[in-house]
Amino acid sequence: MLNFYTQKIEDYLKSYSLPQEPSNLYEPLVYFLGLGGKRLRPVLTLLATELGGKSSEESMHAALSIELFHNFSLIHDDIMDNAPIRRGLPTVHEKWNSNIAILSGDVLLVKAYELLSKQKNEHIPSLFQLFNKTAIEVCEGQQMDMDFENRDDVTIEEYISMIRLKTSVLLGCALEFGFIISDQSIDNRKKLYDFGVNLGIAFQIQDDILDLYGDPEKVGKQVGGDVKANKKTLLYLVAEKICNKLNNSRLNSLKEIKDLDKKVQETKFFYSEIGVLEETQNYLNYYYDSSMKSLEAIEISSSKDNLLQMVNYLFNRQN
Amino acid sequence: MLNFYTQKIEDYLKSYSLPQEPSNLYEPLVYFLGLGGKRLRPVLTLLATELGGKSSEESMHAALSIELFHNFSLIHDDIMDNAPIRRGLPTVHEKWNSNIAILSGDVLLVKAYELLSKQKNEHIPSLFQLFNKTAIEVCEGQQMDMDFENRDDVTIEEYISMIRLKTSVLLGCALEFGFIISDQSIDNRKKLYDFGVNLGIAFQIQDDILDLYGDPEKVGKQVGGDVKANKKTLLYLVAEKICNKLNNSRLNSLKEIKDLDKKVQETKFFYSEIGVLEETQNYLNYYYDSSMKSLEAIEISSSKDNLLQMVNYLFNRQN
Repeated sequence: MLNFYTQKIEDYLKSYSLPQEPSNLYEPLVYFLGLGGKRLRPVLTLLATELGGKSSEESMHAALSIELFHNFSLIHDDIMDNAPIRRGLPTVHEKWNSNIAILSGDVLLVKAYELLSKQKNEHIPSLFQLFNKTAIEVCEGQQMDMDFENRDDVTIEEYISMIRLKTSVLLGCALEFGFIISDQSIDNRKKLYDFGVNLGIAFQIQDDILDLYGDPEKVGKQVGGDVKANKKTLLYLVAEKICNKLNNSRLNSLKEIKDLDKKVQETKFFYSEIGVLEETQNYLNYYYDSSMKSLEAIEISSSKDNLLQMVNYLFNRQN
Repeated sequence: MLNFYTQKIEDYLKSYSLPQEPSNLYEPLVYFLGLGGKRLRPVLTLLATELGGKSSEESMHAALSIELFHNFSLIHDDIMDNAPIRRGLPTVHEKWNSNIAILSGDVLLVKAYELLSKQKNEHIPSLFQLFNKTAIEVCEGQQMDMDFENRDDVTIEEYISMIRLKTSVLLGCALEFGFIISDQSIDNRKKLYDFGVNLGIAFQIQDDILDLYGDPEKVGKQVGGDVKANKKTLLYLVAEKICNKLNNSRLNSLKEIKDLDKKVQETKFFYSEIGVLEETQNYLNYYYDSSMKSLEAIEISSSKDNLLQMVNYLFNRQN
């Protein structure tokens, strides 16, 4: 089912042509947009439009606009995170340079607005209002994430607030776009948005868990990358909270272990000992359940099966 | 007269409040927007709105949106140009760092869109269409400018095309915003836009000329900065064209002079010898005249005096 919608997005992306010149501005975008990815966000827009009773053809511009925005934020985040690789290939600032990555990112953000402007005039004010709010929140989330690197007192609440802004509101926005375009009520729009945001938070928490507890073959990356880099994931913050309660200082000594594989092994063992995984899974379940409740609460006659299938896809990569 | 409108913009800017947190995202913007400047672009929007027969109060959001966009582009350009100083104070990437300058610039661009969204719904589609087009062109112009640094075959036509995109279309956009909001005809809108774009090109050419021929006290910066940095200004490109015709290789040897003051003196002398200033002034006059013709051609009953006063202000700083 999902492949059908992903293909729709890929086809539109293929027909969407960027100017040729200046080539240093547009070639990086053709390259980056061609790196692929699952196109989850625009697919959400299409599914929501159909759930709202309209043809997904009516929201193609809005859907691709979300994908362009997502790619804009990746290009700029990669500069800020000094990330050399994205989807197995060099990032824009690595393949070209930082200046080109800044400017081609900028123009991609404008291109996202331009595409959104192609939706029907009657929907433009609502679409723009939500898009502006979301784009601002995504920037705020990225800043919080950067700030957290230099802080030792990040709370679990702050962390969840950060992932909510940095990654989850865009899912909510992608979905609500579909309901704006299918003229759904404000109440239904809000429920679908909440479904997306809570789903996004649950998904991000799952990502944190899989980094340490996932099967490396299924997850497609090394195990324990976050532990090796001393990243403040939810697992770490939960461990920190438990350790504070127990007056246990083991967590700090684990961070100092030089042998990285040993560090991952011992951290995993320690986390099991003090119950970090269960507690983190409680958070995941809480947001997953909230998300499902919002979806159920939407009053609509058409079938929610496609969205449920998407949820299953997102949460069954591992088991 | 201008002070009255500048003050209106300053007042609105004072009442325009950005969020407090994350402070690393918003403090740089409060700082940068507070550096001042003449607020020429938003003033153009207000003047155009009044010329179109509406109160300038009706275009305040659009006017400030233009100013925010302009500041977004300055913050990102300063990173790319590695510029340490803006209006006598440290640039954002100098005072904070490049990552903060990238991200606060990004959010400022979105804030510009957010403000523009506050105009009346009936004007939103036209405003956004023009704003998107202009924003894309400004990015293209900046990329061309960066590309020119590494090229030895830049033509005069390409240079003018670059300054048109990088700096002039935003003046056209600022003015046309006022005519969109005052419900002027497409024909009048186009004429006012052309007035702004040609005025912008003429103004940029004047800037190139003043860098070498201006009175340093009146211009407010050192004489010959462009020559010292071997910048490809219109003066240089005109000199190059004349030299090619005359088979004169003096221009290349001038670039090699190590004593910078001597370099400026000799370049100025050589330019006089081969008629560079006159030829460059011909370009300036051509765009200035085109601009005036477009303004005259606008069919409207209200007085164009305020806009003419603005033109005089822009072109009489020196004489």
